[in-house]
Amino acid sequence: MADEALFQFLHSEIIQYVNGAESGESEIGRCVSKLENMGFRVGQGLIERFTKDTPRFKDELDVLKFICKDFWTSVFKKQIDNLRTNHQGIYVLQDNKFRLLTQLSAGKQHLEHAPKFLALTCGLVRGALSNLGVKSIVTAEVSVMPACKFQVMIQKM
Amino acid sequence: MADEALFQFLHSEIIQYVNGAESGESEIGRCVSKLENMGFRVGQGLIERFTKDTPRFKDELDVLKFICKDFWTSVFKKQIDNLRTNHQGIYVLQDNKFRLLTQLSAGKQHLEHAPKFLALTCGLVRGALSNLGVKSIVTAEVSVMPACKFQVMIQKM
Repeated sequence: MADEALFQFLHSEIIQYVNGAESGESEIGRCVSKLENMGFRVGQGLIERFTKDTPRFKDELDVLKFICKDFWTSVFKKQIDNLRTNHQGIYVLQDNKFRLLTQLSAGKQHLEHAPKFLALTCGLVRGALSNLGVKSIVTAEVSVMPACKFQVMIQKM
Repeated sequence: MADEALFQFLHSEIIQYVNGAESGESEIGRCVSKLENMGFRVGQGLIERFTKDTPRFKDELDVLKFICKDFWTSVFKKQIDNLRTNHQGIYVLQDNKFRLLTQLSAGKQHLEHAPKFLALTCGLVRGALSNLGVKSIVTAEVSVMPACKFQVMIQKM
């Protein structure tokens, strides 16, 4: 619980700071992109450690399953609740109780702030996949807090 | 290990970002102070959770011992190696292998960057103490990496 709290509090501070530091017209866009980039580098570093002793992955789906189970558990203390794919390079990872959203109130008026709370995690996933040789674009959407979906679009090389 | 890595990587990213965002003449000073403030709020939040079921502390020394043992262990996975006090409101907490410095090379040319790597932790300690009713000023110094000393000066009310 301690680690979890540390991550949650730090995450809030980062968002608040980045949000304050990036000013101007395209404020939210820049804030989100900075957070995504930070997440990307953290994800790269983390996956390198996590997979140190892991056998080679069979295929893309195998990599995604690892992200949903092992990677998600180590970062968020739970697995992804649902993984879907169209078998054409699009994967949807659904977390029914995403930890970094549980601090936000569930009211609809807060939905507009959700992208800031998801950006770092989108980066985490993109960074982790990237270091496993899978180039992707990761986006996230929230319909009802604190559930959310991460969409991974694989970029074929 | 996973949590530890997450904290370390995030911490590096925060430093890098804050360092880049704070520009101007007094750059390092502002960067350090921003990081310290972030740490302060994180420390306040953390200690609130950690001490939820802890019996009331006897005195100031008892509080400091809690920081050195329980608090330090939950954040840095080890205890403070040495706690000294002059019994007049000054406490020195020595960590012989401070986790957030172990990534830095040990060369003397890197010593000038050390304050940035210690600022958030100074804030953590100050925030934690503050929420336990102990007002303080916390500074840090490094003589030989990755050992460092945190000095806590209690501010009498």
